[in-house]
Amino acid sequence: MGFNELPTHVWPRGAARGADGEVTIGGVPLPEIAVQYGTPVMVIDEDDFRSRCRDMAAAFGAPENVHYASKAFLTRQIARWVDEEGLALDVASENELRIALAAGFPAKRITVHGNNKSLSFLGLCVSAGVGHVVVDSHQELRELNVVAGRAGAVQDVFIRVKPGVDAHTHEFIATSHEDQKFGLSLASGSAYRAAGDAIAADHLRLTGLHCHVGSQVFDAEGFKLAAERVLGLYKQIYAEQSVALDYLDLGGGYGIAYVEQEEPLDVAAVAADLLRAVREVADDLGIPAPTVVVEPGRAIAGPSTVTVYRVGTVKDVHTSHTTTRRYIAVDGGMSDNIRPSLYDSLYDARVVNRLVDGAEVPTRLVGSHCESGDILVNDASWPEDVAPGDLVALAATGAYCYSMSSNYNAFGRPAVVAVRAGEITPMVRRETVEDLLAREYDLPAI
Amino acid sequence: MGFNELPTHVWPRGAARGADGEVTIGGVPLPEIAVQYGTPVMVIDEDDFRSRCRDMAAAFGAPENVHYASKAFLTRQIARWVDEEGLALDVASENELRIALAAGFPAKRITVHGNNKSLSFLGLCVSAGVGHVVVDSHQELRELNVVAGRAGAVQDVFIRVKPGVDAHTHEFIATSHEDQKFGLSLASGSAYRAAGDAIAADHLRLTGLHCHVGSQVFDAEGFKLAAERVLGLYKQIYAEQSVALDYLDLGGGYGIAYVEQEEPLDVAAVAADLLRAVREVADDLGIPAPTVVVEPGRAIAGPSTVTVYRVGTVKDVHTSHTTTRRYIAVDGGMSDNIRPSLYDSLYDARVVNRLVDGAEVPTRLVGSHCESGDILVNDASWPEDVAPGDLVALAATGAYCYSMSSNYNAFGRPAVVAVRAGEITPMVRRETVEDLLAREYDLPAI
Repeated sequence: MGFNELPTHVWPRGAARGADGEVTIGGVPLPEIAVQYGTPVMVIDEDDFRSRCRDMAAAFGAPENVHYASKAFLTRQIARWVDEEGLALDVASENELRIALAAGFPAKRITVHGNNKSLSFLGLCVSAGVGHVVVDSHQELRELNVVAGRAGAVQDVFIRVKPGVDAHTHEFIATSHEDQKFGLSLASGSAYRAAGDAIAADHLRLTGLHCHVGSQVFDAEGFKLAAERVLGLYKQIYAEQSVALDYLDLGGGYGIAYVEQEEPLDVAAVAADLLRAVREVADDLGIPAPTVVVEPGRAIAGPSTVTVYRVGTVKDVHTSHTTTRRYIAVDGGMSDNIRPSLYDSLYDARVVNRLVDGAEVPTRLVGSHCESGDILVNDASWPEDVAPGDLVALAATGAYCYSMSSNYNAFGRPAVVAVRAGEITPMVRRETVEDLLAREYDLPAI
Repeated sequence: MGFNELPTHVWPRGAARGADGEVTIGGVPLPEIAVQYGTPVMVIDEDDFRSRCRDMAAAFGAPENVHYASKAFLTRQIARWVDEEGLALDVASENELRIALAAGFPAKRITVHGNNKSLSFLGLCVSAGVGHVVVDSHQELRELNVVAGRAGAVQDVFIRVKPGVDAHTHEFIATSHEDQKFGLSLASGSAYRAAGDAIAADHLRLTGLHCHVGSQVFDAEGFKLAAERVLGLYKQIYAEQSVALDYLDLGGGYGIAYVEQEEPLDVAAVAADLLRAVREVADDLGIPAPTVVVEPGRAIAGPSTVTVYRVGTVKDVHTSHTTTRRYIAVDGGMSDNIRPSLYDSLYDARVVNRLVDGAEVPTRLVGSHCESGDILVNDASWPEDVAPGDLVALAATGAYCYSMSSNYNAFGRPAVVAVRAGEITPMVRRETVEDLLAREYDLPAI
C-alpha cells in the first residue's frame, strides 16, 4: 500500500483522501480542523463511533447487551452517544460514574466495576440506582450489603470471576492469569462462596457472573473457554442454591487493527460463535441460558479517532557510517499518547495535508517531550519530502489515548472535536497553561 | 531492616517514625495531613528539597552552576524555592517556561531545552530574555537566528552534542545511543558544523556545549568520558574558530535510591571527581577550562516527596494450591504514578499511621484502576496485619510522578502539600470531577 493510501480497516469509516490530497473525516478536511482548533487535535468520526455501537448491538442481539467501557474514552458527549444508541455503560470509578450521571445517562443501564470501590463510591452506586455492581472481593460484598441496607435498597450485583483462562494462550488454569488483582477464583471455590454470600445477603440480589479474559483478543476461543468454565459455576449455583442467573458478562477485549498488517476482529462472526457456544453449553448443563453481555471499549472508540499533529523539526541522524534515520518531530507525544512507551504499541501514521512523494527513507516519528523514549512510531519508511509544517495523523487513537493523557512537560491536553456529516462538534477545548496553574494555591510573597 | 523502620537514604531527610508509630515529615504526622487533605496526597519535605539544592550547589561550586530540571516536578512554588536557593532552572517546553516566568523566576537564569521548539516558543525565549537556549538541530539554529534577529537581539546558545557515550556501559560510540532524537552528532561532524554556524550567526552567541549521558547514573565515569569527548570539540572550536566557550553543560542523570538495597549517589565525591577531570583534560588540551554546569531533576526533587494512600480492599489470591499472595489496594495508582508500569520502577512503601506486626506475607500493592498492570509495588513481604483504613506511603515520588500524572479512569490528580518546620504549605489542590468537566463544551440538547 502506498504511503498516500489509507488502510481503511485502521482508519475511521468516514476517512478519505480527496483529489487535492487532503484527508477528510465525515467530509471535513483535517487541515481545516487543524487551522481552526490548532494542533495536536483529536478528531472523532461520530458516525464511525455510532456505527460500531450498532454493529456490536446487532452482533450481540440487543443494544443493552453491549456495555461501552468508559475507561477507553469518556466525555459527557460520548456518554450521550452511547445512550442514544441504546447501549449500556460500564464505569470503573466514582468519577466515571459521576460523569455518566452528569451526561444524563440512565443509571439503570450502568454497570460498575472496580477492584477497590470506596464506601463513598458504593453509596453513590446505590443512591443513583445503578443497574449492576460487579463485586470484586468478599470485602466489597459485605460492605455493599451494609451500604445498600442503610439506604433501604436491594442492589443487583454480578460476581467477578477469575476463570483461569488466558485468551491469548487458550489455556485453562493459567496460574499467572489468576495472580492478578481482579475477581474471585473459580478454581479455589472463592467465587462460589461469594455467590452464595450474595444470594444470602439481605440487600443484594445476584443476577449474573462476570469474567474478563484479556485485551486485543481476535477470536472467540478464549471467550468460549471462559464462558464454559463460568457456566459450570452457574450450574453449581442453579443446582445447589436453586437460583437462576439472568446474565453472563464476558467482559471486553475485542481486538482492533492498529496497523495495516493487522486484521480487525470480525465482530459478527465472533459474537455468533460465542452466543451459539453459550447456548449449547447451557443446554448440555441443563440450565437456563443467561443473556450474554459484553464490554467493548477499544472496539467502539478506538478506530473512531485520529490525532492530528503538525511537523516541527526534521533531522537526519547517522545510525552508522553509511546509514541514516530521519527523525520527524511533532507537536505532541507521550503526553497525549503514552501507549507506544507503555505497551510498545504500533500506530499507522500518514501525512494528511497533501500527497507526499519521493524515495522512502527510514523514519521515526517522535514527540516533543524531554525524554528519548518519547516515540510515536518507532520504525517506519516514509517518502523523503515530508517537511516542517506538514500535518501528520495517527489513526485509531480513540481508546486509551485521551483517557490516559498527562501534562508531562506542562503540555496541555489536545482539543477534541467530533465530525458528523460535514458538521464539527467541539467536544473538549485545548488545555492551557492557565488551566495547569488553576489548582495551585496562591503563592506566599517572596 | 524491619518493616516499621524507614530506610533513611530513600525517605525524605525530615521523615521519622514517632513513638506512637506515626510517620512525620518535618514534624507533621502524615495521618494528620491525610485527614486534612484527603488521600492520595503528595507531601513534599521542603527542607529536603532545599537541602539537596544546597548540596548540589556546594558540590558544583556555585548555585548558578546547578540547573534544576523542571520536568521532574514543577509548580510556581517549586520554581520559587529553586530561585531562593540561587539555582538556575531548566525548562523543556513553552509551558514550563511560562510557569517559571509566572513564578517570577529570573529569565537570565533559565536554560531552555527541547527537540522540537516551535517558533512561538523560540520567540518567547528571546522576548523573555532567557539565559541560554540549548539548540538541538540545524533547523532550530537557523530559526532561532531569524527569531532573535527580528527582535533585534543576540541570543546566547549552547549546542546539544551527542557524545556517543552511554553512561551505563561506559562505552564510546555506542551507536544505539546516537540513534535518538536529541542533539547533534560529534562523530559525524554535525555538532562542529552547528557550532561554526552559531558562531557565524548574527543573532546568536555560542557560549557552551551540552550533552546528556543517561538517567539514574551512579558514578562519574560516564560523565567524565562524555566531558572528555565534548572537550575535544571545544579544542577544535578554540583552535579553528578562535572562540573560547564559557560553559560545559553535562546534563542530568544523577541517580537516587528508590529502595533500601540501592545506594544513593555521593554527589560531592562524583562532582569533585568530575570537576577535577574536566580541569585536567582542559589543561592537557591547552584550552581554558569551561565552567561545568549540571541539570539534576530527580536528584533534587525525587527523595523530597512521599505519596500517602489509604488502603481499601485487601484480598488473598491463590498463586498455587499451597501459596497465596496478598493484594493490598490503595486509592490511587497508575494515574498518579505511572513509573512502575512504564519503567518497572521499584518503590519503598511503608505503613505510616501505626506500627504493624505479624508474620510477613507475600504482598503486592496495587492501585484502583481498571487495568491488571496497575501495580505500585510488585513484590514485597509485609506484616499480615495491614488492614483497610491503614495509610501507606511510597517514598521518593517527587520526580516524574506528579509531572507525568494522568486522569485515567477519570481520577483527579492528588493534592500536593509541602511541610517545613511543622508548617504545612498547601501547593496544589486536589483535582475534582468538576475540573475534569470544565474543558468540555456545553452539550447540545438531546
